Amino acid sequence: MFEQLGLIGCGLMGGSFALALKKAGLVGRVVGYSKSPSTTERALALGVIDAEASSALQAVQGSDLVLLAVPVAATEATLASIRHLVTPGMLIMDVGSTKADVVQAARAGLGDRIGSFVPAHPITGKEVAGVEHAEAGLYTGSHVVLTPTEHTHDALLEQARRIWQALGCQVHGMTPEAHDATLATVSHLPHLLAFAMMQSVLAQPDADATLALAGPGFRDFTRIAAGNPQIWRDILLANREQVLAQARQFREALDQLEALVHAGDGPGLQEQITRASTARAGWRMGAPRMGAPRTAAPATSSDLQGA
Amino acid sequence: MFEQLGLIGCGLMGGSFALALKKAGLVGRVVGYSKSPSTTERALALGVIDAEASSALQAVQGSDLVLLAVPVAATEATLASIRHLVTPGMLIMDVGSTKADVVQAARAGLGDRIGSFVPAHPITGKEVAGVEHAEAGLYTGSHVVLTPTEHTHDALLEQARRIWQALGCQVHGMTPEAHDATLATVSHLPHLLAFAMMQSVLAQPDADATLALAGPGFRDFTRIAAGNPQIWRDILLANREQVLAQARQFREALDQLEALVHAGDGPGLQEQITRASTARAGWRMGAPRMGAPRTAAPATSSDLQGA
Repeated sequence: MFEQLGLIGCGLMGGSFALALKKAGLVGRVVGYSKSPSTTERALALGVIDAEASSALQAVQGSDLVLLAVPVAATEATLASIRHLVTPGMLIMDVGSTKADVVQAARAGLGDRIGSFVPAHPITGKEVAGVEHAEAGLYTGSHVVLTPTEHTHDALLEQARRIWQALGCQVHGMTPEAHDATLATVSHLPHLLAFAMMQSVLAQPDADATLALAGPGFRDFTRIAAGNPQIWRDILLANREQVLAQARQFREALDQLEALVHAGDGPGLQEQITRASTARAGWRMGAPRMGAPRTAAPATSSDLQGA
Repeated sequence: MFEQLGLIGCGLMGGSFALALKKAGLVGRVVGYSKSPSTTERALALGVIDAEASSALQAVQGSDLVLLAVPVAATEATLASIRHLVTPGMLIMDVGSTKADVVQAARAGLGDRIGSFVPAHPITGKEVAGVEHAEAGLYTGSHVVLTPTEHTHDALLEQARRIWQALGCQVHGMTPEAHDATLATVSHLPHLLAFAMMQSVLAQPDADATLALAGPGFRDFTRIAAGNPQIWRDILLANREQVLAQARQFREALDQLEALVHAGDGPGLQEQITRASTARAGWRMGAPRMGAPRTAAPATSSDLQGA
């Protein structure tokens, strides 16, 4: 049970976290701040927060739990602005989709107080943004990756783990680099490909007539192309090396399939498609992982694996 | 109202067509044939067909409507086997996902009786196959493309149009080539990309751990990768030129996005993503098309456009 959550950024992710904590009875009171005063007002009107703060610093004042739910690019400046109020017992988390850059920003923004910060990435979301769409169940059933640094206080890491578990999440510990490589594979590259698919259709001589004949397969394949352009610009640039490395690997797989199509190699093509189809048909979102993590996390988070 | 549907191929697509016709009160009786006798038996037991035929020819005997719902590669042989029972007033349709090869197969299989054949592609489906999954509502709300040849009897084309409309479909007329180009864009290439995405993930050093962290975006993006390997092998090979042409166009769009990511060009990347995101957010499956078709269909099917 936390006395007060200081919520910095009252959008979809932050708002849903506040609602989930309240529903779980884990927090006494939520003080919220958003860059846009109208957002903070709406959050108050919707009961997402209990009091408005006029600055990030004011939201942190008196809080034993702080959630940073702002664009990743704003992490360093925001942490720097609250630094002198950060105490050793205060747990600070973020919800950013990239982690190596967030950890770097936290080192710069928090300096010697970085021990209070537990970098977190709950893997969930919606195609719509804004506090109006916040809901207590957004995180239920999702995976959360924590990427502690060598300075992270063990007790705070344990607190973080318990919070996310209490919200119905499966918690994983990884290094920031392993997180970014994995997310490039399963999220960032698919978004880049979906954006490219839409661009490719729009380049057709008569895109409207073409799109009129698209069915459910196309609908699902391109759903993520409707994502927020600013957020995805930031993610793709923040994680650019891993994204480009994954794009190279994807092109190799595509090269191979195209070569089989070009050669008219039916048995070879069927073999490759069967491999892909079997793997996809056997995959279930949220299933416990079968193997070891991509890279072992540092010792401080080794306990996360047994959760 | 048709007296008898001769159903050749009692799987998901054929079975659903029979159920839909029955529900709409458009057919008196359904005689079904499948290559596998156990499939025909199940179709009978499920009430999808009213009588079993021991051959395609027997299913055609006495039928005024024939639906060919077999793998595209079996079209020519099947049509050749029923050719001598085809009468001028008999309407024969298929449900194949490619049309240039089907028209070619129909010319070879039916010879001078090709006027009875109206090539059809209802754009719908499921990731599961088999008559157990057949349902009367499978075609409701979907687009159906008819690609008549210069020999197609106008009266049969009109009958075909009315059947699909009666099943709740939006009917379009196109040339086989225009159909194949459009479907390569909105269906065949997305499948190829989804297969490549799965192959690329499987090539990771620890694919299981990576897949364990995949969320709803990945789930939807790769859903079509679970498609039937034989069916997709056939489609990709049958439409290989258009698929490879679309793959080239897609790679150009991907090249452009990757170059912006590589250069760290935030404004340029945001502009491109915004274009893709806006187009996708504004698209609705099944919405009436805004523009003209990619290529005007031959005169015999021009009336389809006004439907």
